[in-house]
Amino acid sequence: MAKIDLASLPVKTGSIYPAPYDALVAGRSSQRLGDAGGLTQFGVNLVTLAPGGLSSMRHWHLAEDEFVMVTEGQCTMVTDAGETEMGPGDCAAFPAGRPDGHHFINRTDRPARFLVVGSKAPREVATYSDEDLMVTVEAGRATFTHKDGTPYIAPKGDQ
Amino acid sequence: MAKIDLASLPVKTGSIYPAPYDALVAGRSSQRLGDAGGLTQFGVNLVTLAPGGLSSMRHWHLAEDEFVMVTEGQCTMVTDAGETEMGPGDCAAFPAGRPDGHHFINRTDRPARFLVVGSKAPREVATYSDEDLMVTVEAGRATFTHKDGTPYIAPKGDQ
Repeated sequence: MAKIDLASLPVKTGSIYPAPYDALVAGRSSQRLGDAGGLTQFGVNLVTLAPGGLSSMRHWHLAEDEFVMVTEGQCTMVTDAGETEMGPGDCAAFPAGRPDGHHFINRTDRPARFLVVGSKAPREVATYSDEDLMVTVEAGRATFTHKDGTPYIAPKGDQ
Repeated sequence: MAKIDLASLPVKTGSIYPAPYDALVAGRSSQRLGDAGGLTQFGVNLVTLAPGGLSSMRHWHLAEDEFVMVTEGQCTMVTDAGETEMGPGDCAAFPAGRPDGHHFINRTDRPARFLVVGSKAPREVATYSDEDLMVTVEAGRATFTHKDGTPYIAPKGDQ
C-alpha cells in the first residue's frame, strides 16, 4: 500500500442538499481519502473550508459515528453547547444517535481543513437541528423530508 | 459534544504482544480518542512514537480496514513495497484482507505522531509478515499462534 497521493485526488464540490440549502455549503470542498485507499468499512474525507465556508447545516446522525480532527487553519465548531474554536490537532467525536447537531464554520481569512471519519450504515437518517429538514439515505439514495415526514419540495427558481 | 481534551486523556503504554515481541514496541504510546468521545463503531487512536520507536510488528488485518494520517514529526512506513517517508498530513490506507503488512518507525531524534482509525470486527486475525506469528482477537481475548495454528509459547525469562 502506498502513501495516498493527495495532490492527485479529485476535489469534490457541490452538495446533495436541495435548494436553497445547497448554496450554504458553496465554500466547502473535499477529497475522499478512504475511497482512494480502497477502504469500504468507513469513510475518510479531507474537507477544506474556504474563508466563510460552512461544513454542513448543523446536523446529527442516527446510525453513524463521526470523528473530526482539524488539520489546518482555524474552525469554529457549533453544537447545542455553543461555539468552540478549534485548531490543528483538535478533535471532536459525535456518537450515533445523540441529538446534538454540529457543524464547522471558517470565520478566518484563510482556508481551514479537517479530516472527518464516518461509519457506513446501510440506512442513515441525519436531522438538521436548525431547520425543519431531515434526510434519509438508503441504497445510495437521499430523500429529504420535513421533520413530520412530509416530502421537502424545493422552491422553484428563476430558471 | 465538546472538543476532546487531549491533555487530560490517559496515555497508554505496553502491548498485548507476548515476549520477546513486547519489547519491540516499548517506544510507543497512545491515546484512545474515539473511546474518549463515546464512539463505538470504529476506533481512533493518537499514537506517539519516541525516537527509535516502532508502531507494531509489520502486520495486516483480515477483517478490519485501517487508516493512518501522520500529524507530527516524521515516520518511515514499511510495506511489501519497501520504505516510504511520511510527514504531517501524509496518509495511508490498509484495506481488510490485503496481505501486505505495514508498520511505522520513527528514525528521527524527536517524537512522531499519527492518528490511526480502525473498524471493529467481532473477530479479527492479524498476521505478522516478518515473524512466524499471528493473533486472533475475539470477545476481547487475543490468542497468539504460529502461522500453522499451533500455540505460541513465550520463552521463559530469567525471573
